[in-house]
Amino acid sequence: MISAYSKDQFTNHFISRKTKKKPFDDEVMETVKEVIENVRNRGEVALKEYTKKFDGGIPNEWIVSEEERKAAWNEVSSDVIESLQKAAENIRSFHSKQLQQTRMMEMTEEIISGQLFRPIERVGVYVPGGKAVYPSTVLMNAIPAVLAGVNQIVMTTPSRGGGAISPILSVAADIAGVHTIYKMGGSQAIAVLAYGIDGIQPVDKIVGPGNAYVAAAKSLVFGDVGIEMIAGPSEVAIIADETANPRFIAADLIAQAEHDEKARPFVFSTSQRVLDETMIEVRKQCEVLPRKEIAEVALTNEGAAVFVKTIEEAFQLVNALAPEHLELQIDDALAHLSKVKNAGSVFIGHYTPESVGDYFAGPNHVLPTSGTARFSSGLSVDDFIKKTTFVYYSEQALQHAAPHIESIAFEEQLEGHARAVKVRLEQ
Amino acid sequence: MISAYSKDQFTNHFISRKTKKKPFDDEVMETVKEVIENVRNRGEVALKEYTKKFDGGIPNEWIVSEEERKAAWNEVSSDVIESLQKAAENIRSFHSKQLQQTRMMEMTEEIISGQLFRPIERVGVYVPGGKAVYPSTVLMNAIPAVLAGVNQIVMTTPSRGGGAISPILSVAADIAGVHTIYKMGGSQAIAVLAYGIDGIQPVDKIVGPGNAYVAAAKSLVFGDVGIEMIAGPSEVAIIADETANPRFIAADLIAQAEHDEKARPFVFSTSQRVLDETMIEVRKQCEVLPRKEIAEVALTNEGAAVFVKTIEEAFQLVNALAPEHLELQIDDALAHLSKVKNAGSVFIGHYTPESVGDYFAGPNHVLPTSGTARFSSGLSVDDFIKKTTFVYYSEQALQHAAPHIESIAFEEQLEGHARAVKVRLEQ
Repeated sequence: MISAYSKDQFTNHFISRKTKKKPFDDEVMETVKEVIENVRNRGEVALKEYTKKFDGGIPNEWIVSEEERKAAWNEVSSDVIESLQKAAENIRSFHSKQLQQTRMMEMTEEIISGQLFRPIERVGVYVPGGKAVYPSTVLMNAIPAVLAGVNQIVMTTPSRGGGAISPILSVAADIAGVHTIYKMGGSQAIAVLAYGIDGIQPVDKIVGPGNAYVAAAKSLVFGDVGIEMIAGPSEVAIIADETANPRFIAADLIAQAEHDEKARPFVFSTSQRVLDETMIEVRKQCEVLPRKEIAEVALTNEGAAVFVKTIEEAFQLVNALAPEHLELQIDDALAHLSKVKNAGSVFIGHYTPESVGDYFAGPNHVLPTSGTARFSSGLSVDDFIKKTTFVYYSEQALQHAAPHIESIAFEEQLEGHARAVKVRLEQ
Repeated sequence: MISAYSKDQFTNHFISRKTKKKPFDDEVMETVKEVIENVRNRGEVALKEYTKKFDGGIPNEWIVSEEERKAAWNEVSSDVIESLQKAAENIRSFHSKQLQQTRMMEMTEEIISGQLFRPIERVGVYVPGGKAVYPSTVLMNAIPAVLAGVNQIVMTTPSRGGGAISPILSVAADIAGVHTIYKMGGSQAIAVLAYGIDGIQPVDKIVGPGNAYVAAAKSLVFGDVGIEMIAGPSEVAIIADETANPRFIAADLIAQAEHDEKARPFVFSTSQRVLDETMIEVRKQCEVLPRKEIAEVALTNEGAAVFVKTIEEAFQLVNALAPEHLELQIDDALAHLSKVKNAGSVFIGHYTPESVGDYFAGPNHVLPTSGTARFSSGLSVDDFIKKTTFVYYSEQALQHAAPHIESIAFEEQLEGHARAVKVRLEQ
């Protein structure tokens, strides 16, 4: 069901910038624009209308109470709690090593300069509700914010018909260190996070995944608040050589494909045998998959199996693609890591399936998609930090610098800039 | 001419998110959309049409030749060259301390994880042409890219009627280390950088300032390429106490105001005397300014002088405003640096006017405007680096992690994720 592509076909179909689609449907955009303007202008009244319409009921309080948060722990199995705690520990350990401190670039009697590292003040994490919920989303988005030192981390997720939120999301929020949880969902929740309503302060940055409406809302409020990125369909690119196990490759392609019908599972191999056996394995393993129907659509419509002559050729294609996830199911895989130029996250060797990273190992699973790994990176502590530069000049330092500043200022026809120096030295 | 505002008036007028304007005019957006689609579909033919129309002539070659670049050095005064070289040295020194190395988060026999730091492959720097040109823009945008290790740094700036580009921009490009210069301007140049034409490869990220058309074009191609930010009007906020010199304050407000009619010069003082004398000084100094007319409009329409009871009150306002530039013209200024939560760059003490940083000291002058310093930072080496996470698990490590990965995967109803682990341990 996964199709074979030649190198050139793959390049034309998946890499060329001529074939990229628009991220949002015009209709979605129009709907969301209206929701945002309504919430911005009419506040809680509009929020209530949309919440009733989309979530099926209005909660008594927007904030999840302490009691509700405590009670949620009794509704989640202790096995799952333990696994989430262990995952959180690994995520914390990995991300804590990203922390940087305010630094001095220069420090003399005459000149001091540097970069001040400051956490963002208030961050909102959007977490989708629905039939299946994703506690890993809560951990991945909130833990880096906690480590950055963000003062107020709020999470928002739709209530179930005006009642409680999903208990496991509440537990995950506790484990991650989320301060406040709101019972709001959809683009109306994004509008509240961006502009506030009476009783709910706006945030400075919004992170977290969502459906097309939530994503469109994030793109519209960007500028008034920060956002981390607009995620496209999830992708995996697997580079496999003769030593790769087709059963492992097939399982990983399927794990990618089960996300949704637009997910993109790719395999690049120097071995036609491995590709052929992978195709057979994909069919076999799909048969017994609960989300078989979704996976099959993604594999058939979005997947690609590409034969390459050399591993170098595979890396060329993959670097041009800049996939969200890259697996190296090749001999001596770690030694090939330096060949990676563009990828969100790399999974090295035969025993590191992507799901290790999705849930557990520590690196973030919020990653750049649709080729944006060419110029951007996965979520990290840095996304919750601002770097403010600073400089101090003494009178003497200014004196030394004056001729240069003045000569550039005159060249740029900004004489006022030169005078700001001159006025200080005329005394 | 600069108006007095109370604290509350200032908050309502300049800080509230209810009063923000749209960044782009609809008409500009429509025009630019058409230009981009045309260049994307019709390539060089469209580029030539727009270049003829907007730049007044089509260059023989799009690329500035080696000879042209050499010849430009003879057209710039040696004083200015020396000042640009000294500035470049300071910018290089400051930014080189931002460089980070690939790091390991964990390194045992069973688990290896970390972050790979990789430069962006190909970067485009847009530099406006026009009557006044800004060599400092070239240095500030290109030097961090050079230090990051970007393989191909291309710059583009409009030719003068199809002839040469501004010689000083060419010299600045040489000093900064730009590899290739194109003679293209406007939104058509942004389209070429984003999508390429025959003979010109697209880039991965576009940085640099421009007029409304260029800014709108950058916002439209974002996603297909990276951009650094969309800049709003330039701002300065000056916190001044009784020790501040009204002549210095006035000179700095004017330096800000001369940029353009939308520039925003603000002063916050605990001393009514200082505010009063600043007003008088602004009037006096404006009289003899070449760009007097522009500065007066900005001071009158966009400026504000705010009396505050305490320095703490000033910091509260300024942190809510999150100005692009913040000057601390107060006693013992360095000791107050820790009070800064949101600002692009801070200029400390009575002898550090903003123009020190605009041109010379080393920190970048590409800074977040319009309150975006609440969640973003000025241009730095980091803007040209991607952080790719990686993880290696041994078979044994996977065995240990398996129960946790499986329990979370089942909870999230993604059984394929669990099976990708299981299939590897069944052997």
